[in-house]
Amino acid sequence: MTVEVIAIGGYEEVGKNMTAVKVGEDVVIFDMGIHLDRISIHEDTDIDRMHSLDLIERGIIPDDTIMKDVDGKVKGIVFSHGHLDHIGAVAKLAHRYDTPIIGTPYTTALIEKQIRGERKFKVNNPIRPLNPGSKIKLSKDITLEFVQSTHSIPQAVFPVLHTPEGIIVYALDFKFDNHQKVSPPPDYNRLRELGRKGVLALIVETTNAINYTETRTYSEKVARIILEDLMREPLKAKEGMIVTTFSSHIERIQTIADIAKNSDREILFLGRSMERFCGIAQNLGILKLPRTAYVHGSPKAVNKALMKAEDDRDKYLLVTTGHQGEPDALLPRIASGRTPFNIKKGDNVIFSAPIIPNPTNAANRHILESKLKANGARIYANAHVSGHAGREDHRDFLRMLKPKHIIPAHGELDMLVAYGELAEEEGYRIGNNIHILRNAQAQVFNGN
Amino acid sequence: MTVEVIAIGGYEEVGKNMTAVKVGEDVVIFDMGIHLDRISIHEDTDIDRMHSLDLIERGIIPDDTIMKDVDGKVKGIVFSHGHLDHIGAVAKLAHRYDTPIIGTPYTTALIEKQIRGERKFKVNNPIRPLNPGSKIKLSKDITLEFVQSTHSIPQAVFPVLHTPEGIIVYALDFKFDNHQKVSPPPDYNRLRELGRKGVLALIVETTNAINYTETRTYSEKVARIILEDLMREPLKAKEGMIVTTFSSHIERIQTIADIAKNSDREILFLGRSMERFCGIAQNLGILKLPRTAYVHGSPKAVNKALMKAEDDRDKYLLVTTGHQGEPDALLPRIASGRTPFNIKKGDNVIFSAPIIPNPTNAANRHILESKLKANGARIYANAHVSGHAGREDHRDFLRMLKPKHIIPAHGELDMLVAYGELAEEEGYRIGNNIHILRNAQAQVFNGN
Amino acid sequence: MTVEVIAIGGYEEVGKNMTAVKVGEDVVIFDMGIHLDRISIHEDTDIDRMHSLDLIERGIIPDDTIMKDVDGKVKGIVFSHGHLDHIGAVAKLAHRYDTPIIGTPYTTALIEKQIRGERKFKVNNPIRPLNPGSKIKLSKDITLEFVQSTHSIPQAVFPVLHTPEGIIVYALDFKFDNHQKVSPPPDYNRLRELGRKGVLALIVETTNAINYTETRTYSEKVARIILEDLMREPLKAKEGMIVTTFSSHIERIQTIADIAKNSDREILFLGRSMERFCGIAQNLGILKLPRTAYVHGSPKAVNKALMKAEDDRDKYLLVTTGHQGEPDALLPRIASGRTPFNIKKGDNVIFSAPIIPNPTNAANRHILESKLKANGARIYANAHVSGHAGREDHRDFLRMLKPKHIIPAHGELDMLVAYGELAEEEGYRIGNNIHILRNAQAQVFNGN
Amino acid sequence: MTVEVIAIGGYEEVGKNMTAVKVGEDVVIFDMGIHLDRISIHEDTDIDRMHSLDLIERGIIPDDTIMKDVDGKVKGIVFSHGHLDHIGAVAKLAHRYDTPIIGTPYTTALIEKQIRGERKFKVNNPIRPLNPGSKIKLSKDITLEFVQSTHSIPQAVFPVLHTPEGIIVYALDFKFDNHQKVSPPPDYNRLRELGRKGVLALIVETTNAINYTETRTYSEKVARIILEDLMREPLKAKEGMIVTTFSSHIERIQTIADIAKNSDREILFLGRSMERFCGIAQNLGILKLPRTAYVHGSPKAVNKALMKAEDDRDKYLLVTTGHQGEPDALLPRIASGRTPFNIKKGDNVIFSAPIIPNPTNAANRHILESKLKANGARIYANAHVSGHAGREDHRDFLRMLKPKHIIPAHGELDMLVAYGELAEEEGYRIGNNIHILRNAQAQVFNGN
Repeated sequence: MTVEVIAIGGYEEVGKNMTAVKVGEDVVIFDMGIHLDRISIHEDTDIDRMHSLDLIERGIIPDDTIMKDVDGKVKGIVFSHGHLDHIGAVAKLAHRYDTPIIGTPYTTALIEKQIRGERKFKVNNPIRPLNPGSKIKLSKDITLEFVQSTHSIPQAVFPVLHTPEGIIVYALDFKFDNHQKVSPPPDYNRLRELGRKGVLALIVETTNAINYTETRTYSEKVARIILEDLMREPLKAKEGMIVTTFSSHIERIQTIADIAKNSDREILFLGRSMERFCGIAQNLGILKLPRTAYVHGSPKAVNKALMKAEDDRDKYLLVTTGHQGEPDALLPRIASGRTPFNIKKGDNVIFSAPIIPNPTNAANRHILESKLKANGARIYANAHVSGHAGREDHRDFLRMLKPKHIIPAHGELDMLVAYGELAEEEGYRIGNNIHILRNAQAQVFNGN
Repeated sequence: MTVEVIAIGGYEEVGKNMTAVKVGEDVVIFDMGIHLDRISIHEDTDIDRMHSLDLIERGIIPDDTIMKDVDGKVKGIVFSHGHLDHIGAVAKLAHRYDTPIIGTPYTTALIEKQIRGERKFKVNNPIRPLNPGSKIKLSKDITLEFVQSTHSIPQAVFPVLHTPEGIIVYALDFKFDNHQKVSPPPDYNRLRELGRKGVLALIVETTNAINYTETRTYSEKVARIILEDLMREPLKAKEGMIVTTFSSHIERIQTIADIAKNSDREILFLGRSMERFCGIAQNLGILKLPRTAYVHGSPKAVNKALMKAEDDRDKYLLVTTGHQGEPDALLPRIASGRTPFNIKKGDNVIFSAPIIPNPTNAANRHILESKLKANGARIYANAHVSGHAGREDHRDFLRMLKPKHIIPAHGELDMLVAYGELAEEEGYRIGNNIHILRNAQAQVFNGN
Repeated sequence: MTVEVIAIGGYEEVGKNMTAVKVGEDVVIFDMGIHLDRISIHEDTDIDRMHSLDLIERGIIPDDTIMKDVDGKVKGIVFSHGHLDHIGAVAKLAHRYDTPIIGTPYTTALIEKQIRGERKFKVNNPIRPLNPGSKIKLSKDITLEFVQSTHSIPQAVFPVLHTPEGIIVYALDFKFDNHQKVSPPPDYNRLRELGRKGVLALIVETTNAINYTETRTYSEKVARIILEDLMREPLKAKEGMIVTTFSSHIERIQTIADIAKNSDREILFLGRSMERFCGIAQNLGILKLPRTAYVHGSPKAVNKALMKAEDDRDKYLLVTTGHQGEPDALLPRIASGRTPFNIKKGDNVIFSAPIIPNPTNAANRHILESKLKANGARIYANAHVSGHAGREDHRDFLRMLKPKHIIPAHGELDMLVAYGELAEEEGYRIGNNIHILRNAQAQVFNGN
Repeated sequence: MTVEVIAIGGYEEVGKNMTAVKVGEDVVIFDMGIHLDRISIHEDTDIDRMHSLDLIERGIIPDDTIMKDVDGKVKGIVFSHGHLDHIGAVAKLAHRYDTPIIGTPYTTALIEKQIRGERKFKVNNPIRPLNPGSKIKLSKDITLEFVQSTHSIPQAVFPVLHTPEGIIVYALDFKFDNHQKVSPPPDYNRLRELGRKGVLALIVETTNAINYTETRTYSEKVARIILEDLMREPLKAKEGMIVTTFSSHIERIQTIADIAKNSDREILFLGRSMERFCGIAQNLGILKLPRTAYVHGSPKAVNKALMKAEDDRDKYLLVTTGHQGEPDALLPRIASGRTPFNIKKGDNVIFSAPIIPNPTNAANRHILESKLKANGARIYANAHVSGHAGREDHRDFLRMLKPKHIIPAHGELDMLVAYGELAEEEGYRIGNNIHILRNAQAQVFNGN
């Protein structure tokens, strides 16, 4: 029985992740993500109404047309976590496969929202939530297991396939964080056990391999210390206060709420995507907001909240989207004077996010900060830690799993290759057992 | 008699240059420029119709309101050359001063165009063209001389004031180029003579001081060699061909035309600003286009030209604006499919310009190149040499002029300071005879 | 009564700090540091035996010969903290002044060591330890106060002069760290009080102003979390283990010892400078090493310790100097096989230090890491947080002190200027009340 | 008949190039280079006396021990050009193969020198010079052709194998320069002809692919213009004058001599390697020095020449080695005062070379420049153009040759991969017909 890993998307970009694994005649698909950067090149893109083939041509979603040449039966579409570069294309692609959608409860709840927003396609695949630590049989030969991981969104897992030829681990995206509040630490023991049982192939994210520095990624505990130190004075001040962060980063949102809850400020989480990610997380008991916190999603509710905050600026902490300066997100609209809340001298604006490096973000962020400062705001930048494993975390991961084969994924070529060099330092060899794939290429293993 | 140098604009930015020099009771103003970068921050800026005070508040033109506290009579507004960061605010500011406008013929012709385009103010100052190498008496105590310089626009000069207290040299902007076609080399002999007579103060541009490398700036002769090598094959090819460069860079435009004139392609210079700069340069006999070259400025004429080029793409060389990716310039509109000419596979697009470093340009250019490549164009980047003196050119300049005092200008603080460090290597000292000014600050010298 | 700040050293470099403040006829000197980078240019420098004038010529110690033109009586030499760039020239310069040496107990103990090592000069100045929070009268008009600060060495203070013309604060070097173990937090209340009383001038370090990012410097608490995560597994492993850090960074050394004390490894602090800084810190009760920790300074003792560690590599944690790859420091000598301890496959080497950016360090560190890796070591880089205030810390500091005048210090020109720009954002103005000095320049204030 | 390309060295580093090509049972070896950077890690390396196995272990020469597993007969060792990273290991490795050494006359003359300097091995392989444009039959199935190329050393060629399975082109190292004085332009027509005949595989250098900018490499004609502008004044000055450049860069040396020959200065080329490369180039009629030029190689002759220059500094132009700051090369020794010629105020030192990027060079060069400046020299940096093809040159090259398969070589992984991305833009695909090899890996092609 041969095993084949088919690179569909995310092997030439950060975004639109999709990988298929074929074991004998059975196929499992991992992730169906979107590539948001591409949209800034094509201004006229209206995703919700567009056809998949058009989106494929623009490079916005994975080109899964190669799947028609794969001779096998798809037994499941498995999602590692709920970020858009992993689930964002589900409504455009999943209906082509007659098979269930599988993810952790938080991930599948987000997928359901995604499907409900779709205007072009009808998606009727059954949806199967699976808890971290649980298993499900996908076919005679394949059992899927979700091993607990940590990332910058709750209920991220390592989906693992148990096959007759060995274990296949899909490790997009993760960090090793032992100190999160809303998520338990990664299940290192299980990872070591898998390593002992025999991992045939590891498909692995590569985000931080490129920095070529022998470091671990800082824990969210570090972000908590940073934010505590940053927020202390602004919370007590008379001026307005805004924190902007990723709406999907529930751990961070919990931290912000916890720090602010004993202050005299109400905490207002504002914007549609805040409502989506926080709402579901609250429903599932993952996010526990204090009584002084409110989430407002509809434009009307947001506006009303901003009006209150404008009048009593020392009574509210606004938590918004827009940290990359995206012109239509809330914080940039506030900075441009397009909302009822106006930035005034001394207002404190904390960016609990990095600048995700691409030229458009750099320009948007520059414009945003210029406007904020022109109106007198004080900015605090980069109150953030990465959600992706560092080089030394990856090194430990390889030592735990001892995979026979490695397929670096989720990155541009230089990132995949940087991971390859890391794995070479651990005794692997590019071209032998490290396989650098391009989108639409496949790698076949003969298990035993 | 005291001499005072008053920094009005361009001492905290690259752009909106304006300096006043007061000698006894007489004042001479140098340059009235615009700061184009600021406009990308304020999207709603309609320069032609806006009042100077609004433009001052947005940081788009120099804040000359400090001039009301200067006790003296303005005897002339002197323009060093015709770039917009030196003349772009003339129509907003000059009418406040009852004094003539002085520049070389090419510069004053551009200023006249500028004034004709103004919708808010009436500008009636007399305009006095003065040739490089000539002098004019501005007051009993002040004679203005234009010393031949070289830059990336024709008829750039060093305006020099002869005063009882010594000579004042205004050196914004220049390079030392001995091999230009449309401009003679700088008048080194005269510069050395001025040095021997006694230069009290040098106000000097700083663009390339910041690179901290001991180099001279390459001559335009180097740009010619590069362009010859780049253009040879595309001129003979069957595909479309575009060169984009600065419309004010007449030397470069002459080079492009000269290289292309023996090919089978007609040369079409397209766009309003191309028409403005080329037209005036032709009228003054500075630019000598071959018979196969045409300049089209009006949208209608441009469109017609593009239609012809679309049908017979091997018959035309298009020379356009838009090298920074400015969304409304011609090349970006072509790349977006918003003109009759469509980029096709194999079209050659030569950027005879650098990316002027700021986040907006980086983003716009990235988007432009992505679109061009997506349509199959082959790009040639950075076929360009700088128009600003290198560190070693500056060093020579100081050794020629031997000024008593140095005022670095036209740059952000780090650029002024980098020039200061260069001058320290030549025996000067920041704080003693190198004066770092901020906008609205002044430096007083007691000549003898 | 005029106040004059005289820049002697450290205004054109990171290193050899020395500043004099003249109040009427009285003078106070702050710091006498060394510039270690310059030694790598002059290979034949034997500091202990060289005359101050030779060291001055080579740029290794501050050029205090300008002090002979200062008409006033020196009333004290005050040391802010015990780093070599602040105390390293004391034995070369202090004897020229007939005045006491003043510092915190830890600083003066280090100065005494420094003086005992001197071979050229006899230094007989009285030494006066002064505790953080205490005051001493230096002259009729000047009282010195030590305000508690935090930095990367114990007992760092802000020396403050109370004068009839206002308060002068000397803030080299500091961070705002509320979570150190061996040092209490900075005395923010006292700083605010000084601000209310009236600060005439602030002389302030600038290290991190240049990064132009609106961040605070991470607390040592973050370094503790990082080191705990990094050291956990290596402490339990069978392989050799080395941590290298600054020997003067007692807080960090305490952290390393605390983390390791419950492991099965003895902790060996090795090297002359480890012995010097740790020994004094232990004597003063600042550093509290566990029973399993030993400090060895003499070459013989170090060798013996390394021999033991070579034989029982899982029984020892070596803490060494050499993190910059300095060829004669301990870790580089270990890596080159010039000691009894040999790097073997799997040994863990943790760099609890950054690469201090200069070309020599980059080269030395590259060679060091190449050798460590060639022998099979696993490296952990940059387990470190900065000891210098971040831009937002500086901003708070200015808001606490509200000084009338600011003199940025301890940096190259671009660093001083970057601080200047930060202060301009807070309402100050370079050239008006921010004064950029070069070595040997002075700034005079008329207090009231 | 299968064709196999075996990567021996230079596929993981810039340096120690060696590649074998097996066609049926016949093997051809290309280049045997040295990796000079590695020596700075191992200070005790005495190359001339060391055994190849030790040098292999230290990574200084290619590990050709894998050749013992190659089942075939070596029919020739072919050298592309005379740089040390291509010929430097010939004396350590060639004797193991019973086959002739083949190169252009200049290259083989350099190889003979190399062999005469060897102290450990006896190298008796016959040496066969072959002119650019000529062919030689290596076996029944293989004919070797030398196609004229250009690089930064004379008589660089593209060695081409004509085989029954197609043509194999070895393109290490080259640029496309149409304006050299000592070398004719590349034979573009022949390259196009080869493309039409059918190129099976291209093994190609990658140096400049990594800059990701769509440019061609500047011609040496540009270096001539730069040097003319730079040298004009120093040649006429009273001060000392030094130019430092690559001793193997005969084109550059010719340029320097040509510029200087009408001055009043004698031109002294100084140092052993200057003597080696210039001497052979003169013997072969490649380099034509004017009567006022002298080459001195022996320490005694160099010293004597420097003594003369010290006394009459305006009478000599010194051309030396040492542009990377290598401590034992001539210019660094001059700067340290270790020769009879001392740097004095105003001496002009022109670096006609880049800083080859690695940490050791950066440090050495920093120290060198600091010393030169401390003694008053004026430095001119980077009077240089690259000797390696730019991205657009590579693109043209691919369009000429239209190879079926591409093997990027001579670089670290990121460089090989950057070339791969360039080739992908031209329609190739990594993993399909672009093959990224690691040292000791091989790629098999089945020609037809």
